[in-house]
Amino acid sequence: PVVATYRLPVGADPHKLGEKIAVGQTAGSWNAAWEHRAGRFQDHLAHVVGAVTDHPDGHPRVRVSFPDADIEGDLGSLLTLVFGKYSMAGPLALDDLELPDSFGRTPKVGLSGLRDRLGVHDRPFVMAIFKPALGLSAQDHADILRDVGMAGLDLIKDDEIMADLPAAPTAERLAACSRSLDEVQAATGRRPLYALNLTGGGGSVVDRARQLEDAGAECFLLNGLAYGWHTVEQVRDAVDVPIFLHPAFAGAIAGAPDHGLPYRLLLGTLPAFSGVDAVLYPAHYGSLPFDPAEEAAIRDALRARNVAPVPSAGIHPGVVPRALSDYGQDVILNAGTGIMDHPGGPADGVRAFFEALDRHGAGEPFTVVDDPSTPLDVALATWGIG
Amino acid sequence: PVVATYRLPVGADPHKLGEKIAVGQTAGSWNAAWEHRAGRFQDHLAHVVGAVTDHPDGHPRVRVSFPDADIEGDLGSLLTLVFGKYSMAGPLALDDLELPDSFGRTPKVGLSGLRDRLGVHDRPFVMAIFKPALGLSAQDHADILRDVGMAGLDLIKDDEIMADLPAAPTAERLAACSRSLDEVQAATGRRPLYALNLTGGGGSVVDRARQLEDAGAECFLLNGLAYGWHTVEQVRDAVDVPIFLHPAFAGAIAGAPDHGLPYRLLLGTLPAFSGVDAVLYPAHYGSLPFDPAEEAAIRDALRARNVAPVPSAGIHPGVVPRALSDYGQDVILNAGTGIMDHPGGPADGVRAFFEALDRHGAGEPFTVVDDPSTPLDVALATWGIG
Repeated sequence: PVVATYRLPVGADPHKLGEKIAVGQTAGSWNAAWEHRAGRFQDHLAHVVGAVTDHPDGHPRVRVSFPDADIEGDLGSLLTLVFGKYSMAGPLALDDLELPDSFGRTPKVGLSGLRDRLGVHDRPFVMAIFKPALGLSAQDHADILRDVGMAGLDLIKDDEIMADLPAAPTAERLAACSRSLDEVQAATGRRPLYALNLTGGGGSVVDRARQLEDAGAECFLLNGLAYGWHTVEQVRDAVDVPIFLHPAFAGAIAGAPDHGLPYRLLLGTLPAFSGVDAVLYPAHYGSLPFDPAEEAAIRDALRARNVAPVPSAGIHPGVVPRALSDYGQDVILNAGTGIMDHPGGPADGVRAFFEALDRHGAGEPFTVVDDPSTPLDVALATWGIG
Repeated sequence: PVVATYRLPVGADPHKLGEKIAVGQTAGSWNAAWEHRAGRFQDHLAHVVGAVTDHPDGHPRVRVSFPDADIEGDLGSLLTLVFGKYSMAGPLALDDLELPDSFGRTPKVGLSGLRDRLGVHDRPFVMAIFKPALGLSAQDHADILRDVGMAGLDLIKDDEIMADLPAAPTAERLAACSRSLDEVQAATGRRPLYALNLTGGGGSVVDRARQLEDAGAECFLLNGLAYGWHTVEQVRDAVDVPIFLHPAFAGAIAGAPDHGLPYRLLLGTLPAFSGVDAVLYPAHYGSLPFDPAEEAAIRDALRARNVAPVPSAGIHPGVVPRALSDYGQDVILNAGTGIMDHPGGPADGVRAFFEALDRHGAGEPFTVVDDPSTPLDVALATWGIG
């Protein structure tokens, strides 16, 4: 079964409302004409299996168990079943989902596979974002990639709004960046992963994924919440390269406390069963209002299914000690301006991160010095200590 | 260009915050290294084109125009662009979208095509929903369909939670119901449309759509908000039969006033540019809390692109005069229990609707009588006058 927990309006009777959901989201009522088949309808009925009337936030909770007979097995039919019609029933949120391990999809590569592919086993990954977001040419991307790749970067991604646009078409970015990756690999023996932003280009995202993989794409970024869960699942089935889920549009679903579902479900539980390999989400280090407890729950939900957590706001070298304290080694530290806007240039941004990992590993303190010379010291002087 | 209007927190400076969105959702900042290419970044920058500081609800609005250079043309990339990252920026909602007529997709069949296919030109359509939602066999569906089809029904749909489940597999429902449609057509000369619920069955929804169309499906129901906009667009491109969009999960995105986007965008503007032929949404006649002004805006956004509005809650024969006053003829009146639970059976439910249309057309009053005999009088005695 699937067990859904609902956050109810203050003052609601959880048993009564839970029963209404359990019936209304499954068989519905059946009328006198069908009484002779009551047994068959009973097989499909959901049931209330728990209730909390004294939750600290004042909102009662009710747990409803949906039988296997109602479940098709993907996220689209799951959300329709547990929160289709009742999403529109006023201030009522989906608060938790307990899914069987066998439900949905697992990552094809995952956190462990990323470690194998990149040969990074004893430290966090360091990831960058191409910046500025729009306006760079395909060759600009390639030049930046060569620069940061030679400095030792593990991963880099397009900005999520970089679609298949005439100023830097996706296929051209891929071709130009692949040449840079070859150069980096020849020079350093290491080949970073470039998460190419996967969009439809007017056609099918899934078909494009296959074409781009054939053309050499080694990793994808996908705005799965804007395109939809089914597209995420289908891309995962179509290609073998790792998929990084971007949280664009997540706030439209998870931003409100009394509606929708919380970030820990939307960016933790659901993607962990969607088959993606890594999930980006706003870290509480940044400017977006994000709750550290939600972030920890996302981290744990992802890791439980071998999905890499990618906290992604306010990440700069000075945050490294705090991030390692929150995450340990199994994390992808993803920096945009925290690498690209380093006063010494993006390569120094990368060097500053590795210097930070080394300095933290050696137990040395992080301090802002008057006359910074190393890339880390320059970074700390620029952005401070997180 | 695409113009997006944002609903801002009370007290926010719309020009300042609008400028932040305009830059942050497009080029982002560019650093000193790129100043020589400022012209190129300027081409991608969005611009504030209007602001309202004294909106009646207290929330300032700002209008931001995104240049064509940033726009790929489908809903997934559009939502990423105008409301990707900023969906997560606290209490900030997308309030309006002005899209060029050339943007996105148009319906292949649409309201006018549904009129042609069904030969219904001078009255609203009458549509039913199979009930109970789960627990009916494929043959039960076919028996109900024969019954209501013989009584003159125009359209019928699966319940949205009826996935491809062992108790009534989609292909079996289609085969059994197609036989009923043949019988109805042979007997009456009219062939109702059966909107088969399109789900993935563990694989691709798009592939399934093609297979089911090949197997004779004449219309689809699609939980597009749960599966995602890209799937909606791809199904529309893959098949030629009409697609009815169901609003399951819509409340998770549109339910909260300060986050996400309003129902009039989510169930009006966006589907009107997605290529679907009809959109179901909660009518204010029903038990779901729904604003009549939102419903009217949905209706107008859909009709402007030849998409059929399908108000769908609390619809029973006694609501017909009010619905015709709100909608006129260009509407699909969609009833679940309002047809299936008629005391005389589903066929009398259908007859009651047509009797209501006739009685209203003749200018005769609707009254609850002591000794009801006709299907309409029984319906009015059962459910009242809306």
